[in-house]
Amino acid sequence: MSRFLASRLASLEAYVPGEQPQDQPYIKLNTNESPFPPSPGVIKAISQTETSRLNLYSDPESKRLVEALAAHYGVGADNVFVSNGSDDILNFCFWGFCQDGAVFPEISYGFYEVFANLHGVPFEKLPMNPDFSIDPLAYHNAGRAVVLANPNAQTGLALSLSAIEGIVRSNPAHVVVVDEAYVDFGGESAVELTKRYDNLIVAMTFSKSRSLAGARLGFAIGPAELIADLKKLQYSTNPYNLNRLTQLAGIAALEDQDYYDKASQRIQATRHRVRQALLQLGFTCTDSRSNFVLASSPRIAGGVLYQKLKERGILVRHFSDPRIENYVRITIGTDAQMDALLEAVRALLP
Amino acid sequence: MSRFLASRLASLEAYVPGEQPQDQPYIKLNTNESPFPPSPGVIKAISQTETSRLNLYSDPESKRLVEALAAHYGVGADNVFVSNGSDDILNFCFWGFCQDGAVFPEISYGFYEVFANLHGVPFEKLPMNPDFSIDPLAYHNAGRAVVLANPNAQTGLALSLSAIEGIVRSNPAHVVVVDEAYVDFGGESAVELTKRYDNLIVAMTFSKSRSLAGARLGFAIGPAELIADLKKLQYSTNPYNLNRLTQLAGIAALEDQDYYDKASQRIQATRHRVRQALLQLGFTCTDSRSNFVLASSPRIAGGVLYQKLKERGILVRHFSDPRIENYVRITIGTDAQMDALLEAVRALLP
Repeated sequence: MSRFLASRLASLEAYVPGEQPQDQPYIKLNTNESPFPPSPGVIKAISQTETSRLNLYSDPESKRLVEALAAHYGVGADNVFVSNGSDDILNFCFWGFCQDGAVFPEISYGFYEVFANLHGVPFEKLPMNPDFSIDPLAYHNAGRAVVLANPNAQTGLALSLSAIEGIVRSNPAHVVVVDEAYVDFGGESAVELTKRYDNLIVAMTFSKSRSLAGARLGFAIGPAELIADLKKLQYSTNPYNLNRLTQLAGIAALEDQDYYDKASQRIQATRHRVRQALLQLGFTCTDSRSNFVLASSPRIAGGVLYQKLKERGILVRHFSDPRIENYVRITIGTDAQMDALLEAVRALLP
Repeated sequence: MSRFLASRLASLEAYVPGEQPQDQPYIKLNTNESPFPPSPGVIKAISQTETSRLNLYSDPESKRLVEALAAHYGVGADNVFVSNGSDDILNFCFWGFCQDGAVFPEISYGFYEVFANLHGVPFEKLPMNPDFSIDPLAYHNAGRAVVLANPNAQTGLALSLSAIEGIVRSNPAHVVVVDEAYVDFGGESAVELTKRYDNLIVAMTFSKSRSLAGARLGFAIGPAELIADLKKLQYSTNPYNLNRLTQLAGIAALEDQDYYDKASQRIQATRHRVRQALLQLGFTCTDSRSNFVLASSPRIAGGVLYQKLKERGILVRHFSDPRIENYVRITIGTDAQMDALLEAVRALLP
């Protein structure tokens, strides 16, 4: 740290992303990427002709992409905000909508706490049930903003749409942010509710189900006034935040929805098979609606399992949070990747 | 604006980027893009093979790109920060290093004021000479952070390296940010000074001389401790902020430096010719070291000239700031584009 850094920022603990090793080829099951490449239309859209136009700025309004998203989700163009990954959106939500504070589950996306600290937002992490399920009533009448990942990060467990609606309805004076990064793997989206409640923002991403983690593309759907606030923050920080080619990739991905639906179905089928196998091996394993599972064995500590899998060329995610330190989070990859994982797990169990 | 937006942000005036019309083909001389496409190596680097890997996150450390920049500029890898455009860097500098306030010239990049307001940084815009030149002594012992675009935005005028060094040396208790977005068109870079002063950050971009405005790639060079602070802010807001393909494009661009040097020489030669022609037409025209000129004619108001050029399919930039409202800022494009501009200007002058 330099002697010049503002004192308020000096004590910040930044987010620690999952490992992205550049050296050797791992079976990468640690950052919830899709194992499938982007659809053929996306590959085609990033053409040499378009690459040769990179000397020109992108459209700061991302008009064509916004219109494509609006059509896809059945909302108006003024209900859509696009950004350089959904972290941007979450950052803006903590910055703009949490002046009375925020609540979120004790186990969820680790970045929520970083954003809250960054913007001086007082926050409370609400306890979960021992099986990691969330009691929606705990978020009723919260008296501050509510931030929920649904399905939830790390656990993959999902709240029903009616549970989300109850939370939104009971907090009319505060914004509810539903982070649906993983919704396409079996969750229920709250997008329809954004038409009826003026305090609901749904954040989504192309990084997971749409195989574009490396392109950096997130979006939010919500009431026009909240979307306008997000745009104001974007135009006050980084107006040209989306790569030209990323805008084209996003449009092309929406046109190839069948491809991504099939990929999601394959991932869900593989998830079911992997979970059954882990349960048979004596693991506890969340009934995930996402593209990962959170699993723990009484026979091997989470940190040891992570380390031994890494030695065998398989990366999973381990968190030091004491509530889940005995677990590993395993991204659902291809069937072949998961067979390799299960074989390694069997070999490692004492 | 929604009823939920934090009161501190409600009064913000966001930055207004130059027009990026998506409808008809304009001769675009309004946002200081290069008229030349990216180099052949860049086009090649964004291959179908790489596009098909967009399902994977980019390296959040951008290790290969950082190493390539370090080698190119003769600094260490820990002296380089990369980001999603240099606006990100400027935003972080105002956020992190300006707790005692900031000074910048009264005419410069309009975003400085937006960033200052966004982060509650008290600021003073220092007056310039009537010819828009800057007195470096006005920035000595400033008692707060100093932010200078060099060459300066809007005017294109440059301070000498020794003038910059005097400012850096006289402000040891505060950071000096030198925004060198336009340095490759005839300015003197302060990169060498970052090895000797611990309070200097140089911000640069691939958007201008390296023909990658649409890729979103900026970088900063500075002392390791200041760079570490910028990384901390990045990891507290958006760790995966760089597109995979953008990282590859940046590396490839550095390998094609000859191409960009030649492009810059062409732009500088064209700039000289355009300036001479405008002077002959009775314009006042800055002696720019950038890829644009700021020009004004006593025979036609700046706003009128802007509007009439737009009607003829030529976009230039007009600012409502009263000190330059009688000027237009004209990006230097290809010789053919500038011939069309000069022909239109001749036809429009009463």
